[in-house]
Amino acid sequence: MGQLSGSKNQNSQVYCKTLTDVEKGIYVEDWSISSEEVDAGEGWKIEKRRLHGGVSDGVDIITVDNGNFSFIVVPTRGMGIWKGECQGISLGWDSPVKCLVHPRHVNLESRGGLGWLDGFNEWIVRCGIASFGAPGFDVLRDNQGREMKVMLTLHGKIANIPASVVKVKIGLKPPFEIGVEGVVYETSMFGSNLKLSTSITTVPGSNTLKISDIIENLRSFPDETQLLYHCNFGSPFLEKGARLVAPIKRVAPRDSVAAKGIDAFNVFGAPETGFVEQVYFMDLFSDNEDRTRTVLVNRDATKAVSVSFSKKNLPCFTLWKNTVAMEDGYVVGLEPGTSFPNPKRFEREKGRVRVLKPGEKFQAEVALSVHLGEDEVAKAVKKVEAIRGERGSTVYEKPIPEFSLV
Amino acid sequence: MGQLSGSKNQNSQVYCKTLTDVEKGIYVEDWSISSEEVDAGEGWKIEKRRLHGGVSDGVDIITVDNGNFSFIVVPTRGMGIWKGECQGISLGWDSPVKCLVHPRHVNLESRGGLGWLDGFNEWIVRCGIASFGAPGFDVLRDNQGREMKVMLTLHGKIANIPASVVKVKIGLKPPFEIGVEGVVYETSMFGSNLKLSTSITTVPGSNTLKISDIIENLRSFPDETQLLYHCNFGSPFLEKGARLVAPIKRVAPRDSVAAKGIDAFNVFGAPETGFVEQVYFMDLFSDNEDRTRTVLVNRDATKAVSVSFSKKNLPCFTLWKNTVAMEDGYVVGLEPGTSFPNPKRFEREKGRVRVLKPGEKFQAEVALSVHLGEDEVAKAVKKVEAIRGERGSTVYEKPIPEFSLV
Amino acid sequence: MGQLSGSKNQNSQVYCKTLTDVEKGIYVEDWSISSEEVDAGEGWKIEKRRLHGGVSDGVDIITVDNGNFSFIVVPTRGMGIWKGECQGISLGWDSPVKCLVHPRHVNLESRGGLGWLDGFNEWIVRCGIASFGAPGFDVLRDNQGREMKVMLTLHGKIANIPASVVKVKIGLKPPFEIGVEGVVYETSMFGSNLKLSTSITTVPGSNTLKISDIIENLRSFPDETQLLYHCNFGSPFLEKGARLVAPIKRVAPRDSVAAKGIDAFNVFGAPETGFVEQVYFMDLFSDNEDRTRTVLVNRDATKAVSVSFSKKNLPCFTLWKNTVAMEDGYVVGLEPGTSFPNPKRFEREKGRVRVLKPGEKFQAEVALSVHLGEDEVAKAVKKVEAIRGERGSTVYEKPIPEFSLV
Repeated sequence: MGQLSGSKNQNSQVYCKTLTDVEKGIYVEDWSISSEEVDAGEGWKIEKRRLHGGVSDGVDIITVDNGNFSFIVVPTRGMGIWKGECQGISLGWDSPVKCLVHPRHVNLESRGGLGWLDGFNEWIVRCGIASFGAPGFDVLRDNQGREMKVMLTLHGKIANIPASVVKVKIGLKPPFEIGVEGVVYETSMFGSNLKLSTSITTVPGSNTLKISDIIENLRSFPDETQLLYHCNFGSPFLEKGARLVAPIKRVAPRDSVAAKGIDAFNVFGAPETGFVEQVYFMDLFSDNEDRTRTVLVNRDATKAVSVSFSKKNLPCFTLWKNTVAMEDGYVVGLEPGTSFPNPKRFEREKGRVRVLKPGEKFQAEVALSVHLGEDEVAKAVKKVEAIRGERGSTVYEKPIPEFSLV
Repeated sequence: MGQLSGSKNQNSQVYCKTLTDVEKGIYVEDWSISSEEVDAGEGWKIEKRRLHGGVSDGVDIITVDNGNFSFIVVPTRGMGIWKGECQGISLGWDSPVKCLVHPRHVNLESRGGLGWLDGFNEWIVRCGIASFGAPGFDVLRDNQGREMKVMLTLHGKIANIPASVVKVKIGLKPPFEIGVEGVVYETSMFGSNLKLSTSITTVPGSNTLKISDIIENLRSFPDETQLLYHCNFGSPFLEKGARLVAPIKRVAPRDSVAAKGIDAFNVFGAPETGFVEQVYFMDLFSDNEDRTRTVLVNRDATKAVSVSFSKKNLPCFTLWKNTVAMEDGYVVGLEPGTSFPNPKRFEREKGRVRVLKPGEKFQAEVALSVHLGEDEVAKAVKKVEAIRGERGSTVYEKPIPEFSLV
Repeated sequence: MGQLSGSKNQNSQVYCKTLTDVEKGIYVEDWSISSEEVDAGEGWKIEKRRLHGGVSDGVDIITVDNGNFSFIVVPTRGMGIWKGECQGISLGWDSPVKCLVHPRHVNLESRGGLGWLDGFNEWIVRCGIASFGAPGFDVLRDNQGREMKVMLTLHGKIANIPASVVKVKIGLKPPFEIGVEGVVYETSMFGSNLKLSTSITTVPGSNTLKISDIIENLRSFPDETQLLYHCNFGSPFLEKGARLVAPIKRVAPRDSVAAKGIDAFNVFGAPETGFVEQVYFMDLFSDNEDRTRTVLVNRDATKAVSVSFSKKNLPCFTLWKNTVAMEDGYVVGLEPGTSFPNPKRFEREKGRVRVLKPGEKFQAEVALSVHLGEDEVAKAVKKVEAIRGERGSTVYEKPIPEFSLV
């Protein structure tokens, strides 16, 4: 490894390459590393590129390929994950927004606070981290200490803030974990000062990627944070007859539109022109370690993806059914979050907004796994059943005031 | 042509070079081609550059010079045309905004929806393509299918969206047409999904450039589009005593300010400090093929420019008289459009907003020609007269409810 | 100097290197010059760099080091001054916003018009130049000559507009003045058209930097300008017991919060969580040439910085006490301005907004000097006392209607 430009840590257990560190003046435009160059597992490759032209001009992407499963991390868009691929099968969805959009082309304030949608095409995108959810007015303090009414825009800012620090890390001992680390600051004078440190990793040959996030409140006084992982799936996992398998304790429709579909809330339809999104808010069961998982299974149960996470830090689970026509963005979202994606004010009233003390760190982990073949899918489903055990679900036919503004 | 990096099509009739294709990862920063390198006509040159520094940093420009007439296409600003020059005479105008402004420095929402003006200095700029016209509230559907009141900003978004695909094309057989093609997406999740494909061409040695646009609705259901070509002229075509020659069927002032100038609506004044824009809405006569043309003629009829287009697709013609002081942007606009530049809601009420079915393509063509010398100018004027024939014009002294909100 | 790429003027008294000139197509990405290369004084160096990655991607900085005192000019952020250093002591402050923020990541309209704060971390930042101060509605004219109510955002636009022209200049005769010149246009069609020409200079080995600004109204009719120098200081000049020394004629608290601290308005506290900013508006005495100065002195009077300026053009002085916790941005601002930073409408009513005739140039100069050691500090304080002479101060206990909206 003498010829590599990165560095190993003291015990030589991890190889680390800094690609961006704005404060230190480090920036690497194009770079790659692979198992051919490092004595650490086989078949993997990590490649960093900067995109040029169009709305993607200046966007950095990092493709992490573990040999079996690859995904593209986007430092310029808050360390979201654009797309994935496992054994030739696409992970993600076809948004009407085709290219990666540089945050400079996204005006979060536009269209009544829905500007976020102008850049929305990621497979996995974080919402937050000062706020997420539907646009709505909130009361903040201005610099003069006065209350001011401010519109919080859809899903917050984090997905449109470039990372200040980006590193590639390679484990030099089994299981040779590989991945990308990033730091994103959502900060302003007289505003939130939240530091997101993320580590997105996988193991060579595996079917899983793991996102480990830490949000730290850098202010000298308590402040709020909200975090939701908007994990979006289109074809081929999503299709007519695909379904969500989840250890549901309670589920309620968000609104009257969703209420109409409550009888089959966990089964997905074919692409349908004019379909209006149906959203279901859930409280899931968890295991002894307070972990839980949900699985999206295709019709004939030969393909599935599971999203697993700790319920302790991500207590709320939202299902977004948006089975519109293909060209309009046929997609479902599996969304573990600190709360439901209602306007922040409502979530605060319900006690679902996290408050961090000065210097306090909030931690969250989400793992996504791909299951191909009947056996693998069956195993994934069994894990959900194991969590549920004998416990039954409560299905509310109508929105409930605990979950949504009704 | 073996050494050229582009490609010919199957029949070798067109040489094509892709300069930008974001999805394919193609981007060429600086490039040029000329008749010296290709066996296809004489005296022409096409040059692509990326600008650096200031508000222009990162703006791509392509200069197309046919040997007699040159113009600068700006992929980064929605394939608008910044400036032109014909036999040493400038086409365009002197906006107070001197440099090309990268869209990232334009906030369309600012100044009550007039932010578009912060980057406005093009000779020819498209307005639209989901909406154009004066800012005004409209009712859209949000992701939840609910009606939401949203401000549509002045002249829409297309001029501030970078092209995703940019190609240079050279005809290899007479008349050796040369030009630039581009694709710009005005798209958002839960919003318009319109694809603009433009081809901007000229023939070596000619005095004409032709813009051929196709707008396609990529959504699965009908959606609206609006398109206006804001063609702006300053000195030397515009001067005291210059006039508009057009086959006018009906013309009405937009408002009371314009009504005051109705007697000489087609004659232009000298630069005048404090002049308030006068806008006239027109219905033009067209020829048997439904084509029409308008000509701006300088005082002594030795210099003119004509704007010709199909009335079928661009039925409304707007004249923008803005003969303010030179330093404030002395200019007139000849503006063929799908409608008048009133707020979109008003135009919709009048049935002037185009609705495209799913996959439907709307086509529009505008040609601009420069006429130098008395004879050429006379010929251009005659063409207008030929369209008009014996038919008379109706001039309304006051705004009429069919054309403007009065 | 034959090998240098810049040029000397006719009399060879100044060496000049253009780093950016957008209209001329000049842009130099990385560049430096030092006294080793030019026969003009000793020990100095000027270095230009472009930053890459994160929110700083594409930001140009120029470090001017006179051998004793260095500072970083930021062309991309309106020719503000990010940081300084004198004999190892930092000038500036620790904003929660750590990196230089490219204007494309600042939406001035966000957070109710407080978006400016998302990029605020400069040592010296200009506010203006069409307006500055707290956000507030104002009435402007739109393109149709109609009155429109528009929100003016906090502190205006100039700090988020990249310079169109940037030059380095070196005096070739004693005192071998070195520095940077820049031109920034705050301009729009149908809006302000103000040209800021700035020259930021220092003399090798000195403890002073001088900012000389000219604002020109490029419109054909009278228009307004506002200019305030937001000079911000944190540790080690600011500390518990540090104080402002100024030749105060009259001082009044801005509001009731500031009124509570009026007894010790000129003495600063330790960092304090939850401190709400206290702002004091002042009318200062000036000397025979109408120049005045204010000094920030640390507790034991061994370190000080002075801000001197002409009262004629900058008649209003504002003290911003924001002694919040270190992590929240412990800072005081010494702010000479054309007016106080109230909403522009209020300042206009009080006759404090400058109106420039067509082509009229408004000039302002601010000098910042660092004083290290008891003797130097004592000298700086004496200069203030010399201005004051025997004249007494009027201290208002409450806000006064002349200065603030009460």
